[in-house]
Amino acid sequence: MAVQKNQSWEPCFASRMAGMQASEIRELLKVAERPDVISFAGGIPDPALFPQNHIRKAYDEILSDPILAGKALQYSLSEGDADLRAWIATHMGSKGIACSPDNILITNGAQQALEFLGKLFISPGDTALVQAQTYLGALQAFAPNQPIYDDLQLENTNRTSSSYRSTAKANDSHVRFSYVVPDFANPTGETMSEGARGKLLDLAHRLNIPIVEDSPYAPLRFEGQPVRSIMALDIDQCGGIERSKVIHCGTFSKIFTPGLRVGWVCARKDIIARLCLIKQASDLNSPAINQLVMLHLARGMYDTQVSKTIAHYRQKRDVMLEALEKYMPNGTIWSRPKGGMFIWLTLAKDIDTAALLPKAVAQCGVAYVPGHAFFADKSANNMLRLSYSLPSISKITPGIAKLAEHFCVD
Amino acid sequence: MAVQKNQSWEPCFASRMAGMQASEIRELLKVAERPDVISFAGGIPDPALFPQNHIRKAYDEILSDPILAGKALQYSLSEGDADLRAWIATHMGSKGIACSPDNILITNGAQQALEFLGKLFISPGDTALVQAQTYLGALQAFAPNQPIYDDLQLENTNRTSSSYRSTAKANDSHVRFSYVVPDFANPTGETMSEGARGKLLDLAHRLNIPIVEDSPYAPLRFEGQPVRSIMALDIDQCGGIERSKVIHCGTFSKIFTPGLRVGWVCARKDIIARLCLIKQASDLNSPAINQLVMLHLARGMYDTQVSKTIAHYRQKRDVMLEALEKYMPNGTIWSRPKGGMFIWLTLAKDIDTAALLPKAVAQCGVAYVPGHAFFADKSANNMLRLSYSLPSISKITPGIAKLAEHFCVD
Repeated sequence: MAVQKNQSWEPCFASRMAGMQASEIRELLKVAERPDVISFAGGIPDPALFPQNHIRKAYDEILSDPILAGKALQYSLSEGDADLRAWIATHMGSKGIACSPDNILITNGAQQALEFLGKLFISPGDTALVQAQTYLGALQAFAPNQPIYDDLQLENTNRTSSSYRSTAKANDSHVRFSYVVPDFANPTGETMSEGARGKLLDLAHRLNIPIVEDSPYAPLRFEGQPVRSIMALDIDQCGGIERSKVIHCGTFSKIFTPGLRVGWVCARKDIIARLCLIKQASDLNSPAINQLVMLHLARGMYDTQVSKTIAHYRQKRDVMLEALEKYMPNGTIWSRPKGGMFIWLTLAKDIDTAALLPKAVAQCGVAYVPGHAFFADKSANNMLRLSYSLPSISKITPGIAKLAEHFCVD
Repeated sequence: MAVQKNQSWEPCFASRMAGMQASEIRELLKVAERPDVISFAGGIPDPALFPQNHIRKAYDEILSDPILAGKALQYSLSEGDADLRAWIATHMGSKGIACSPDNILITNGAQQALEFLGKLFISPGDTALVQAQTYLGALQAFAPNQPIYDDLQLENTNRTSSSYRSTAKANDSHVRFSYVVPDFANPTGETMSEGARGKLLDLAHRLNIPIVEDSPYAPLRFEGQPVRSIMALDIDQCGGIERSKVIHCGTFSKIFTPGLRVGWVCARKDIIARLCLIKQASDLNSPAINQLVMLHLARGMYDTQVSKTIAHYRQKRDVMLEALEKYMPNGTIWSRPKGGMFIWLTLAKDIDTAALLPKAVAQCGVAYVPGHAFFADKSANNMLRLSYSLPSISKITPGIAKLAEHFCVD
């Protein structure tokens, strides 16, 4: 028997692990759990909005019926519950995306859809196009496939398909993939114009790459007219979902509850079939019981719940925007989201938001996410993301006041 | 705008997709749902055993408490619920694996653990050691990482670490990984002797590779003395979990219900930390509500439920063994499992179990899994797996009789 030592396992890990690092947001969740901290950090839904009683009744109804309970507690199909997929297909149809249940795969929240899509399309060294600041969780989801990134620029840019192609070529790479959060984006809160969406579609067709449209916040529009989804625009142009290059990710997490982990992908059938293989290999199926409960909620109260959520977050956004106006130092600029959960702040150039965070939490009892976390290249020291979804309304103004003071003093 | 065609996406997929194929078992689930089919196919728990009322009460209790409900329905930590991890750590301790909650990660069933472990250890072209016939879902979980396989031989073999090393070398590869289901294995129903476990440990130490010990069926022993887990044996030898090369996967799926998708990995802390990063990137966290319900069940009725499950499946195994004895043609041999869910049949050499399956289902109304599905190289035409867990006792004998007749006629 060889001598055993308590060696590091590092040399035994696959090289793909080099790009996988802990999410600051998830680590911050731990800090933000302290009751004395006002957390503007995670994009966490307000539990006051969870339809707790409806959820309780749904579980109870399902588990009181022996047939339904047997189904709910058993292994189930990898693609997801047929009735839930049918509901989602109809729902997508109402948003201009005509499709059938075979165009839908159920995932553990939209995060799992992103992980699957990275696996399906990205080989090591491939170029993925993402906006300069983008959803941190997407970068993590793609990381095991070892992409390199190029900045997807959509407004006020002279970059063309040739420019992306030649940048990739200079890195001995090919452009294979694009990813956007078009509505009330995480982290900026901004929404792509219809013009920018058309431009992205054109670019994707020229480069022959999929567009992953990550759309968790789109239903949460506080004001103004909805912009049509990139997938709906594409279907209009190309004549049907089976010709579309867009892959749309949706979720119930921001509407009902993230705790049941029910999201979906909507795409061409041949894409869904491949993603279903990946789902099968990954965890067999999402919990059937949670899918049945979500179907119950979706059928019974989707629109009501969306309206209630919008009203609640709109008020919180208003309070936060007002407090920013009142307290933030001159030279600070911020986004004015028309929906969703996030405001993006840019401070004076010499302010390092990452360096200031530990003190903000320890001394001011306020948490946020430093901007660099959302950049593939970790640049942008003077930016940060604020979320208004979780803290109670009465805490928002004092929290922003403390934060502003912190940035002024330092 | 480039001309759009309804082209195949095949050329756009990452090369890792080439190895990902549909599971025959999962496809069979669809057939086996027909009420007229007696299914010996999937390793599906009997829903009559699900503690439906306890589960209903657990959901109800959690969702009636505003604090607990807020936690149950919210995003949660990627590593899993702290109390559930503590329960599992104590449970593992009672099986000779002294560990702390930091040695436990919660996954969506053991399947997700296997997928994560493939990602952590296997790079394309690496050699993974698996037994000739092994869990099909493990082969699927590892497939995206494009391993090559060598047959892990543990009893009556003269293969040594040098032999595995030189086979790998001949393929321009390195041995990096080993995987076993030591107790009441899927698909054979067989249990590794303590000697074979020691031999595997020795081999893994010589090759400096992890042993993934997949242990879903170990609690379901019908008779005889338990064999100590490979991890417990290793800890005895090396002095503690932080020095162990064994990574143990467990699950509640075969005890309480697979529908909540709650499993776990137990390993050194540095492994768990890496797996936690993978979990975060994959789907953020397993549903907190399902973890809290599982904790409730585990605390309240683990031992009772195990005893009940053992008694039920033992009876079904006895009936199936008796029917095999009575009806199967001469020259058929089968395993006699002392626990778990599976019996492995070897028929006369000229019988092709895959070719005979469609007729078995259509004409005899009986389903099984053809043996070749469990071989990395798809060999072994004359074998098949039977599961006795799902069909009602009264269906087992007539099902086996029909199957025997089918094999005799053809």
